[in-house]
Amino acid sequence: MFKLHEDRFFDPNPNVREIARELFHWVKDLPIISPHGHVEQKIFADNLPFPNPAELFIIPDHYIFRMLYSQGIPLENLGIPRLDGSKVESDPRKIWQIFADNYFLFAGTPTGVWLDYEFNIVFGIDEKLNSQNARSIYDSIIAKLNTPEYLPRNLYKKFNIEVLTTTDAASDNLEHHKAIIDSGWDARIIPCFRPDAVVDISKSNWLDNLNLLSESVGYEITDFDSYLKALKDRREYFIKFGAVSSDHGVNSVYTIDLPEYEVKSIFKRALNGKSDKFDAEKFTGYMLIKFAEMSLEDDLVMQIHSGARRNHNEVIFEKFGADKGCDIPERVDFTNNLKPLLNKYGNDKSLSLILFTLDESTYSRELAPLAGHYPAVKLGPAWWFHDSIEGMMRYRKMTTETAGFYNTVGFNDDTRAFVSIPARHDLARRIDSNYLAQLTAQHIISVDEAKKLIVDLSYNLVKKAYRL
Amino acid sequence: MFKLHEDRFFDPNPNVREIARELFHWVKDLPIISPHGHVEQKIFADNLPFPNPAELFIIPDHYIFRMLYSQGIPLENLGIPRLDGSKVESDPRKIWQIFADNYFLFAGTPTGVWLDYEFNIVFGIDEKLNSQNARSIYDSIIAKLNTPEYLPRNLYKKFNIEVLTTTDAASDNLEHHKAIIDSGWDARIIPCFRPDAVVDISKSNWLDNLNLLSESVGYEITDFDSYLKALKDRREYFIKFGAVSSDHGVNSVYTIDLPEYEVKSIFKRALNGKSDKFDAEKFTGYMLIKFAEMSLEDDLVMQIHSGARRNHNEVIFEKFGADKGCDIPERVDFTNNLKPLLNKYGNDKSLSLILFTLDESTYSRELAPLAGHYPAVKLGPAWWFHDSIEGMMRYRKMTTETAGFYNTVGFNDDTRAFVSIPARHDLARRIDSNYLAQLTAQHIISVDEAKKLIVDLSYNLVKKAYRL
Amino acid sequence: MFKLHEDRFFDPNPNVREIARELFHWVKDLPIISPHGHVEQKIFADNLPFPNPAELFIIPDHYIFRMLYSQGIPLENLGIPRLDGSKVESDPRKIWQIFADNYFLFAGTPTGVWLDYEFNIVFGIDEKLNSQNARSIYDSIIAKLNTPEYLPRNLYKKFNIEVLTTTDAASDNLEHHKAIIDSGWDARIIPCFRPDAVVDISKSNWLDNLNLLSESVGYEITDFDSYLKALKDRREYFIKFGAVSSDHGVNSVYTIDLPEYEVKSIFKRALNGKSDKFDAEKFTGYMLIKFAEMSLEDDLVMQIHSGARRNHNEVIFEKFGADKGCDIPERVDFTNNLKPLLNKYGNDKSLSLILFTLDESTYSRELAPLAGHYPAVKLGPAWWFHDSIEGMMRYRKMTTETAGFYNTVGFNDDTRAFVSIPARHDLARRIDSNYLAQLTAQHIISVDEAKKLIVDLSYNLVKKAYRL
Repeated sequence: MFKLHEDRFFDPNPNVREIARELFHWVKDLPIISPHGHVEQKIFADNLPFPNPAELFIIPDHYIFRMLYSQGIPLENLGIPRLDGSKVESDPRKIWQIFADNYFLFAGTPTGVWLDYEFNIVFGIDEKLNSQNARSIYDSIIAKLNTPEYLPRNLYKKFNIEVLTTTDAASDNLEHHKAIIDSGWDARIIPCFRPDAVVDISKSNWLDNLNLLSESVGYEITDFDSYLKALKDRREYFIKFGAVSSDHGVNSVYTIDLPEYEVKSIFKRALNGKSDKFDAEKFTGYMLIKFAEMSLEDDLVMQIHSGARRNHNEVIFEKFGADKGCDIPERVDFTNNLKPLLNKYGNDKSLSLILFTLDESTYSRELAPLAGHYPAVKLGPAWWFHDSIEGMMRYRKMTTETAGFYNTVGFNDDTRAFVSIPARHDLARRIDSNYLAQLTAQHIISVDEAKKLIVDLSYNLVKKAYRL
Repeated sequence: MFKLHEDRFFDPNPNVREIARELFHWVKDLPIISPHGHVEQKIFADNLPFPNPAELFIIPDHYIFRMLYSQGIPLENLGIPRLDGSKVESDPRKIWQIFADNYFLFAGTPTGVWLDYEFNIVFGIDEKLNSQNARSIYDSIIAKLNTPEYLPRNLYKKFNIEVLTTTDAASDNLEHHKAIIDSGWDARIIPCFRPDAVVDISKSNWLDNLNLLSESVGYEITDFDSYLKALKDRREYFIKFGAVSSDHGVNSVYTIDLPEYEVKSIFKRALNGKSDKFDAEKFTGYMLIKFAEMSLEDDLVMQIHSGARRNHNEVIFEKFGADKGCDIPERVDFTNNLKPLLNKYGNDKSLSLILFTLDESTYSRELAPLAGHYPAVKLGPAWWFHDSIEGMMRYRKMTTETAGFYNTVGFNDDTRAFVSIPARHDLARRIDSNYLAQLTAQHIISVDEAKKLIVDLSYNLVKKAYRL
Repeated sequence: MFKLHEDRFFDPNPNVREIARELFHWVKDLPIISPHGHVEQKIFADNLPFPNPAELFIIPDHYIFRMLYSQGIPLENLGIPRLDGSKVESDPRKIWQIFADNYFLFAGTPTGVWLDYEFNIVFGIDEKLNSQNARSIYDSIIAKLNTPEYLPRNLYKKFNIEVLTTTDAASDNLEHHKAIIDSGWDARIIPCFRPDAVVDISKSNWLDNLNLLSESVGYEITDFDSYLKALKDRREYFIKFGAVSSDHGVNSVYTIDLPEYEVKSIFKRALNGKSDKFDAEKFTGYMLIKFAEMSLEDDLVMQIHSGARRNHNEVIFEKFGADKGCDIPERVDFTNNLKPLLNKYGNDKSLSLILFTLDESTYSRELAPLAGHYPAVKLGPAWWFHDSIEGMMRYRKMTTETAGFYNTVGFNDDTRAFVSIPARHDLARRIDSNYLAQLTAQHIISVDEAKKLIVDLSYNLVKKAYRL
């Protein structure tokens, strides 16, 4: 019988494990704060049963299908929809069988660990998925999905979620957020303002996105001033729906302070389709500073996610679109690139600027020193590929000694896979418990300090950092 | 009495050690597959006794003499031949004594660990080498070398080697491979096609190498078309002798797809001695794509080794030549540099492209995400300076969570030192056993999964990846 | 009652801990060699009581106040003097209270660990500092500071310091060193020659510094030749006061060998205030080679500290000056940048060139391979942000396997905080004991090797490397 071990992920040394257990005990039932993620709010607005295991676990989650693809399984066979509408596998049982046949690929990966949790704890499956039991596990899951207990809103409550943040385009009208509020359901599901699509003037669809922004505010954007006004108006709109943060996904964190006339002329060139890649780089660099300025005005916490080269595999991008597991990280330079922004606003403690990276070499070299000095800077947790057992341990070991714990912001699950939320927070709390237990067993901190810290890392810091 | 401990390299935690022991037990006697290395095939063609300990252990192995050199011992004193033929130490006993006097320098290094194995297990020496016992150990080794048991072919069988791959220039006529086959000896010693010398047009001896290539195919290479034909003909020739792979040692992994007319004109300039460094960079970048294309035609597995700045110490290079321990790694960018190649052929699962790096910061940032997405990409094991206890642990910890185990290819010993082969595989299998034991003790994988994985990592994956 | 644990920082595994304890026992009472640091020699010349806890622990130590600043506490409130002389907090008790209120911020940091040692062991405080006991601990410390036992010279002897090196500008007349010698006190407090201020021609105050240098030698510096002569004369002067080393703090380690006429013309432009940033880069790059040449003449050990972008926060720099916790590291390239210097002098074993970095990604990729090959190169210990428990473990794990132990140079405390010296050496010796214990418990080295190594790492290597 397959059952998750209660000491999972803890150091096997009994001296450490015992402390880790005790620390985890203090936080395992604390509510979940999920301040950054990509769950579709529509599922809570509609509150309909999830259709089937393939559509719940596989099709929407590039964490999972990229691994199957890496072993040569075509995305079409996994039911990933093609942009041109051509036929892909539509039988969820066939997709599920491929997944089960290849479940061993996930051994030793965080995805495997989360899935084990989801199957075992959320769905009560007591066998490890494999080719033989694929069919019966499928049946068992689908039966549960059709019970009221597994409706999205009921799972939300069962998962003990206190706040769930979605990620939304600047032009989004937040209809599902509105529907949830209007329904009277007592859940705090709030948007996050992500303006990337209207900031990156190098993208071919930038003008289309600008038009959407224009529509959303109800007036035409004819120049940089009306553009800025529209962004501010949208932030205000988001704040009405509970937003506490903005998010900025950038390749590099290049920032630059430009004279206003130059920004205006870049913007004009962009409107006329005549801007070049240097314009785009400068414009994004300038807008990051501008968004920091807006945050100082409207108190939105500012997040910067950087370091992914998006759609590295253009073949897949052209067939299937974005977010299909083909974003590949590259080196990031925070020290030099963020200097203009930090020199302008980094000394202001009323700015809350949270930095995320996919380049771990920056943890100890750049990020921890920056967070350990600038009042505005905080470190987001280990992110994406690093949201994992070893990834989180490296994060703590490479940032704590320079930045301390109190310049970090707790955990972000950053997931599209709603059912993975409790699994991810369980893992994060266990790893932090284990890290603090190791410090305690090495007599670096006391048990009392560790107990205070585990609650801060699991619950208090995230609420404070995101002003919740 | 000096005797290697049976639990060497395992985690001292008893919970982990016990599992590690059990896992190692499953694989310690499996045959050795050595799919990439630099052992001279001539030693098996001739099958003569190794001359003496200095010529067996020290003179051919830059892993060893670089450490002695770093402490100020002149290479001349170690018998390393000078290019100008001037006198160097020729008494192997004197060289051996220097080595023994300085054997403490290897404490904590993989070289030290391998040597301990070679002395203790291969040669049955039961004292740790030092100044005092240098002479007697020398005598003991040389006595053994003159027995049939220590002839190269008998050691090969004793080491339980199933396949041994050598590394050979494109123009090599593979006479020793032929002699081995002709001798009827039942060993699988196969060449690997390494065309670097005829690809890097920036090297002063490129034209000489091109002439050698020309001779090897028996026709003149007058333009890019005949050059390509010659390369393909040589690959076919290598395949006749059992080759399953090509190898490409490049500084950066820059790739670029060029219009044919541009390549042809670069090649023409190179033939006329008029190409510049930009031509050379482009040409290598283009040829990497071309070699991937050839692999798709002839099924050779393609290996790229990158990140060493060769012959950093020009003083040594000019006196002693290449491969004298003065190659120094530098940063590598896989994400951007490999993009053109991967966008062209990376989605084709019939290509097997194995990547090696000396820049560990790329493990989690670039290599694991690439291997965890592109069907063609696999990760070579921890290489060269990182073929070590901590190096292999970092490799597993930084790649597994994103790439899983099945996008890796088992172990490569990559050695020139034939007698170190069993020592290196012993170490690698122990480290993998230990890593899997840690995962098991942390309840991340089950014991059954670990048992399957250790056999895959030690034996199955390498056979599959190299199509053996 | 708060008392440091005797097993602090050791691996909680009993097999390892027991060995670590034994190794540490061999070295805990060895004299301290502090070959690089920033303690003010004036305190020993004057030998007056330290004024109060705030001025002893907080105001001079950017390691401490940067953490408080990062949480939004203005430096003015901590008594950090402003350049414009405007008012800052002058009540040491108020400063101390802020520090105590925020002492929890240091949990898990090396600063916290050192402070715990200083309070508990040096001052005999048996409570952990907090808001409530701030006042009484202040009183207790100040009472001790006014006893003879806590006078600087008595603490120096109590700390068992054998050699203490300060860091001094090229133009410094070393009056305090002279006063100490003249006083007949039997302590070895020696200067280190740090000429950065007269080398970086891009700095606005370079000419002022040059004038100081001119005054110190008693002749005018009118051209590059008299400049070189002055530097050599000053080195000779420093050597008279016991100096054994020079130190070079550079951003990148770019080196370049230039024709003399070019250097002379750059120097002339600099004298006339007409040099540009390319001149400055070349000049520093050339001077590094020149300083290596001087070292070969006068035997000063040459240290290069690189990788900090100084005064990243210009707002703080303009208000408070340099060394206020706002230096942020950035990437360093040793492989390519040091090549010219190493090709010129790196093969000469009579040069001792010690390299320090803030970019840990260079440990295994560049520094260990360089030190494991070039006779002149040695690795300085984990530095600044990495002078910490995990930082030192990473340093050993990433350098030992390639460079061995004997291409490293023992520990540097590099501190401005005199009272932290024993705490820092205690930590370093414990971490090295623990690292060697782990190697021993994994049967990589023997207990006897470990015992020899711990004495070498704690005492012998530093004396040898710094020629003390």
